[in-house]
Amino acid sequence: MAIIEDAVTTQLAAYAASIQYGDLPDAVRREAMRSYFNILGCMLGGARHDGVNIVDRSLGGFAGKPVVTLVGRGGKSDGLHAALINCLASSVYSFDDTHEQAVVHPSGPVAAAAQAVAEMQPVSGRDFLAAVALGVELACRLCKAVSVPPAKGSMAWSGTGISGGIGAAAAAGRLLGLDQAAMRSAIGIALSQAGGFRAMHGSLCTPLMPAGAAQSGLRAALLARSGFTSSPAALEGRHGYLSVFSEQPDLDALSGGLGQRFEILRNTYKPYPCGIVIHPIIDACLELRRRYRPDPDRITSVSIAASPGAMLLCNNRSPRDEMEAHVSLHHWVAVALLRGSARIRDMDTETAVKDPALMQFQRRVEATLDPGRAADSAEVSITLTDGSRHSSRIEHCIGSATRPMTDAELEAKFAAMAIPVMGQQRADALMWQCRDLPNLADAGDVARAAA
Amino acid sequence: MAIIEDAVTTQLAAYAASIQYGDLPDAVRREAMRSYFNILGCMLGGARHDGVNIVDRSLGGFAGKPVVTLVGRGGKSDGLHAALINCLASSVYSFDDTHEQAVVHPSGPVAAAAQAVAEMQPVSGRDFLAAVALGVELACRLCKAVSVPPAKGSMAWSGTGISGGIGAAAAAGRLLGLDQAAMRSAIGIALSQAGGFRAMHGSLCTPLMPAGAAQSGLRAALLARSGFTSSPAALEGRHGYLSVFSEQPDLDALSGGLGQRFEILRNTYKPYPCGIVIHPIIDACLELRRRYRPDPDRITSVSIAASPGAMLLCNNRSPRDEMEAHVSLHHWVAVALLRGSARIRDMDTETAVKDPALMQFQRRVEATLDPGRAADSAEVSITLTDGSRHSSRIEHCIGSATRPMTDAELEAKFAAMAIPVMGQQRADALMWQCRDLPNLADAGDVARAAA
Repeated sequence: MAIIEDAVTTQLAAYAASIQYGDLPDAVRREAMRSYFNILGCMLGGARHDGVNIVDRSLGGFAGKPVVTLVGRGGKSDGLHAALINCLASSVYSFDDTHEQAVVHPSGPVAAAAQAVAEMQPVSGRDFLAAVALGVELACRLCKAVSVPPAKGSMAWSGTGISGGIGAAAAAGRLLGLDQAAMRSAIGIALSQAGGFRAMHGSLCTPLMPAGAAQSGLRAALLARSGFTSSPAALEGRHGYLSVFSEQPDLDALSGGLGQRFEILRNTYKPYPCGIVIHPIIDACLELRRRYRPDPDRITSVSIAASPGAMLLCNNRSPRDEMEAHVSLHHWVAVALLRGSARIRDMDTETAVKDPALMQFQRRVEATLDPGRAADSAEVSITLTDGSRHSSRIEHCIGSATRPMTDAELEAKFAAMAIPVMGQQRADALMWQCRDLPNLADAGDVARAAA
Repeated sequence: MAIIEDAVTTQLAAYAASIQYGDLPDAVRREAMRSYFNILGCMLGGARHDGVNIVDRSLGGFAGKPVVTLVGRGGKSDGLHAALINCLASSVYSFDDTHEQAVVHPSGPVAAAAQAVAEMQPVSGRDFLAAVALGVELACRLCKAVSVPPAKGSMAWSGTGISGGIGAAAAAGRLLGLDQAAMRSAIGIALSQAGGFRAMHGSLCTPLMPAGAAQSGLRAALLARSGFTSSPAALEGRHGYLSVFSEQPDLDALSGGLGQRFEILRNTYKPYPCGIVIHPIIDACLELRRRYRPDPDRITSVSIAASPGAMLLCNNRSPRDEMEAHVSLHHWVAVALLRGSARIRDMDTETAVKDPALMQFQRRVEATLDPGRAADSAEVSITLTDGSRHSSRIEHCIGSATRPMTDAELEAKFAAMAIPVMGQQRADALMWQCRDLPNLADAGDVARAAA
């Protein structure tokens, strides 16, 4: 009985404590690099966000020795504060990444925690990438195990909130050299602080959940290294992760084929800075605009056949500020059709959310639930004043697992966020450095170059 | 609709932002003082625990300016780290306090957060006590609302983990002078980081959950003061606290009779350092020993009619270390019958948990579920080698709401923890200072005197 109960946490800990870059398939190495490259860009893009400024200003006075780079903010802080700030910046624009099935945004907590360790001690580029691959893998598996059929879970939980800390703990723990027993403790310690539910949707607390997970995961790894211990069966034990977050967990999704099957290969990167379930709708609107160039004043109505996720999470016609606009499909329909874009600046509270033209247009947008529709798909129809009607159907949106962002698209996304912060030349150099990560002797060089 | 949805969080925030010592009934003032006095003693008692040492050693290097006292440890740290350490110390021996119905240990997170603020800025003794009363009240109400009938909840959650951060945020927020809107944000921010479930039972992660809540609550108040915001209906909104933690919440328990009805009046203080559901069993064993003075070698069996809570949480015949002994009723039965005591030193791993006499005796202890039995009640029978049988039935254990610890008992408990740390003279002076709290101009003096 005890042996069975202990099995899954121990099994994951054993895997986490021994993962090696050399053992990872090429595709996994590549996706770890793309995950990190994308999230580093997001850290740069979000570094000067008001929400990040508030947290840094408010908590920076409690921070310790400045050892770890606050990406894009031109300073350093202690590792725990830096993990919080860097992850917050990476997620504050909802521009990060997503495991399509598990609806978790794994790289923010994982990368922010791993990056902190990489500046606290020398870490090779290969070890760093292996740690990122590990953390992303665990976060995705944990979420899949409690939410993706055959598992039954609750939409109430923030997947990133409940799993991100374990991913961060595993990544940081690997870089800190934790053995299997300490890794198991780190997982348990991170779980004891895991939380986050969707009542926070559309507020600054949404990005604070992954940020808290980054910090709490790093802390768990540090505590485990020092000998702090946890229950041995934090995941599968009675009143443990699996039973708490799922009425019917899928154990195989969590621990089946470790080292053989890789969920990180289904990690996807967001082309637009908003809730991922809105993306196919934006694709459809941009296509309509490209193809028919409709005069917005002549569009009398926009009707959308939306996925259950889009309706549940983003059916908000009247967002009041940027944080609500992140998760308002009406907002992005208006932006895409009127402006032909879907950029960070298109959700600025003053110049976009309160733009009278956009606000007025949102009233003409009607979303309808299409119960069988996949999350990466949508159909949008516009009706014009002359009664004509045009439609666009997106089967798989850009940035979905079926139609992933290309390297070139990722580079363009990165450049758009990095250049305003650091200029073209340094942004280019940073991109080269990221590509060269497998050869870097000190992975912390990347973060330092992104200061 | 929006108005109803916003109501409860807003209502609690309004109450929290305006509570005044002058408005509190005498009994509430007294219980706030007893709650703080008791938990300060627990901070002193746990200050040198190995688990506290590990956390301080491991995370102290990330701490900022030394402003707030680490009680009983002879040093200071930044407020966030100090809140973590002081609360951890207060709960590491399971010796703290309990709201009998809601099974939450409210004072640790609340007092540790309030104490940190009281050393970051001048706070009067009266304001301090009002903040403690507020935080304890909210933590107890939050737990009651999701777990005590007519509410239906899950035993899987750690009540202190899910509610302690809000209690801490409210107490700290009151002392920081948050207005209603900021207080509402603080509640939401704290909730976005709330968690903790019972898979951690019997490990060092158990006290880490309240400790994390203390820190996270203080952080929430600091962030809210700086303008960080949350959803307005974090408690009652869709996918909010009430619906997430309860299949049938009791709204009246949360917000009914605020300022009229006080849950803090049902806060109780632990006479023994272990899971509260073991307490009536210890009382019964100590009574048997006093009354019959049985030779332990002649006790052939001990049979216990135990409450559902005792069976669910503490039915562990073979604890392996101190943390497991906290929640092993078998351990404490052996201690009480063999040693006639139930002190901190009676769960030391080497000298108690691994004491061969205790280990051997535990095999003779048999606990049986008595489904209708109240949590503060137990019946213990011993059978002797000559076939004689003695029983003791406890209807309400010492430290239950019906039979609360007297002030003299609380003082003896405090003295037993304070004197080894600071000597008789300073311990006496500290007790006097606590009694004088309503007249203190600077409540931080108490913590500083407990350095």
